[in-house]
Amino acid sequence: MSEEIVVIEGDGIGREVVPAAVSVLEAVGDFEFVEAEAGDAVKEETGEALPQETYDTVADADATLFGAAGETAADVILPLRTAVGSFVNVRPARAYPGVDAVRPETDLVFLRENTEGVYAGHEDRLSDDLSTLTRVVTTSASERLAEYACEYVEEQGNDGFQVVHKANVMRETDGRFRDAVVDVAEGAGVETEEVLMDAFATRVCLDPTQFDVVVCPNLAGDVLSDLAAGLVGGLGLLPSANVGPDNALFEPVHGTAPDIAGEGVANPSAAILSAAMLLDHLGYADEAENVRTAVESVLEDGPRTADLGGDADTEAVTAAVLDRLD
Amino acid sequence: MSEEIVVIEGDGIGREVVPAAVSVLEAVGDFEFVEAEAGDAVKEETGEALPQETYDTVADADATLFGAAGETAADVILPLRTAVGSFVNVRPARAYPGVDAVRPETDLVFLRENTEGVYAGHEDRLSDDLSTLTRVVTTSASERLAEYACEYVEEQGNDGFQVVHKANVMRETDGRFRDAVVDVAEGAGVETEEVLMDAFATRVCLDPTQFDVVVCPNLAGDVLSDLAAGLVGGLGLLPSANVGPDNALFEPVHGTAPDIAGEGVANPSAAILSAAMLLDHLGYADEAENVRTAVESVLEDGPRTADLGGDADTEAVTAAVLDRLD
Ligand SMILES: CC(C)[C@H](C(=O)O)[C@@H](O)C(=O)O
Ligand SMILES: CC(C)[C@H](C(=O)O)[C@@H](O)C(=O)O
Repeated sequence: MSEEIVVIEGDGIGREVVPAAVSVLEAVGDFEFVEAEAGDAVKEETGEALPQETYDTVADADATLFGAAGETAADVILPLRTAVGSFVNVRPARAYPGVDAVRPETDLVFLRENTEGVYAGHEDRLSDDLSTLTRVVTTSASERLAEYACEYVEEQGNDGFQVVHKANVMRETDGRFRDAVVDVAEGAGVETEEVLMDAFATRVCLDPTQFDVVVCPNLAGDVLSDLAAGLVGGLGLLPSANVGPDNALFEPVHGTAPDIAGEGVANPSAAILSAAMLLDHLGYADEAENVRTAVESVLEDGPRTADLGGDADTEAVTAAVLDRLD
Repeated sequence: MSEEIVVIEGDGIGREVVPAAVSVLEAVGDFEFVEAEAGDAVKEETGEALPQETYDTVADADATLFGAAGETAADVILPLRTAVGSFVNVRPARAYPGVDAVRPETDLVFLRENTEGVYAGHEDRLSDDLSTLTRVVTTSASERLAEYACEYVEEQGNDGFQVVHKANVMRETDGRFRDAVVDVAEGAGVETEEVLMDAFATRVCLDPTQFDVVVCPNLAGDVLSDLAAGLVGGLGLLPSANVGPDNALFEPVHGTAPDIAGEGVANPSAAILSAAMLLDHLGYADEAENVRTAVESVLEDGPRTADLGGDADTEAVTAAVLDRLD
């Protein structure tokens, strides 16, 4: 029986890089692909950026590969994270040999809380002058994330992880987050190092090798993983996984790139690396490794798209990856 | 009549770099210095990190020069910002010729909202599992910041500024912030560019010259200015000003540096550059420029402290700055 993978191209270069990633998945496995729609284009047609049908399809699938959405990004991706029950957003940020990077020694993974913090989104307009947002932190979500982090570092053979927070200011909420995460880690015999969110931003620029697995609240994970993207040369190469208990959604960290959309010149690497994370999630570790190695090899000395200083198109890069699969 | 400047050394290297900055102020002007205490040390003695007397002295002064506080940093600096009625935290982040930097072309100023956001600090423990924090955004504080930003860019001869926010997620609160800031700028004929907080983190690493004056909510300003500190080589060189309607507090962005505190080897540059901002604030523009030029000259080819790869001590660097004053 083949697994069902939902495929949502979305908008912009999502329509170019997702088909590239699907062709790689087809080359290494036997999957059933189910197409679904979300984003600006479907909103223009139907009035809804995320049709209920798409939500349900994603919720029922084994895994989803998502491209990008334009103006409607938040209306699409935040509910889709809920659809897969995702409690952690896994964001590896590493530099690749052969690719220009501000900090070529960067090799980090962010484990971002994916359900609460400021994203819980209770906002109120209290007066003409004043609005509030209720930031939510629970011990249960923090523990859940920490349990995942402990398993993750054990699998990777790391001793421990860093916990980012701003508990010197958000004493009750980030204090709760920090305590819950540190407690779980202590119970599991996993080491932790606490780093204030602002200090992390300075230190990661000065020396990213100080960090390996970085556990963060939701917004901190959003901003600091994008910072790490800057250090490795841009969003173009970063995959991500929104992981839930028995479902997950994979997406390149980049957006729709309206400046180049439609020209067939987008870099498919982040989408293909997201497909590799999807393979890992479905238990195809060898296939995942095969794909990653092929992408790395192409990045090192294969054809490259304009964002990496080359003039190859999406198709040529994808063909090179397919060609270098084992 | 000479202005009254309150001096708070605080803890750690604050006790070394503040006297250095005071000696520079003494060399260029005629000020009355009033010493006050705050931080870990005074807390150990008296039980209070910020004695009421210190608060009142700062509130009544023309300006304050503050060093650093240790564990008690938040208990000291947040109320002191209130004491001077500070609505904006001005944080220049620039690289200096002669100093190693990840991005030597960085030359930015952050104008950070200094009264609200998550720092407004209404936190509640709602159950054993759940805590909340109420993030506060007002049109009035946002407008106030924007008015300052408009004056600032006009004085500096810039066309406009960047507005950082995360209004795609915090629609009501950061939407209010963005709208208020953009409206004020439009009214003043000042250009604005909106940048999402996460996108800013990526883009500033890739090319900091895209930005000049960056207007941010409180926490965004905290994290993104520390990120810029990483790009220019660390916190060691960054001054800052907490500006209120007719009072202000100046502080190096660095902390107490417990690893080197007491050894007399701390880099006094950030404290001296903070003193230069203080001179500007008091209307001594020529003296401020004189101090800045001397610091830059020493950074370029003078004696340097260990953090910049040298072996000079605080005294030698301070003497060199004094020596190079016009
Ligand atoms: C589009 C936006 C809502 C989203 C987020 O803030 O999580 C994006 O920045 C991301 O990181 O996936
Ligand atoms: C010490 C802390 C409360 C403070 C802040 O978060 O504002 C510090 O990080 C700063 O930026 O001055």
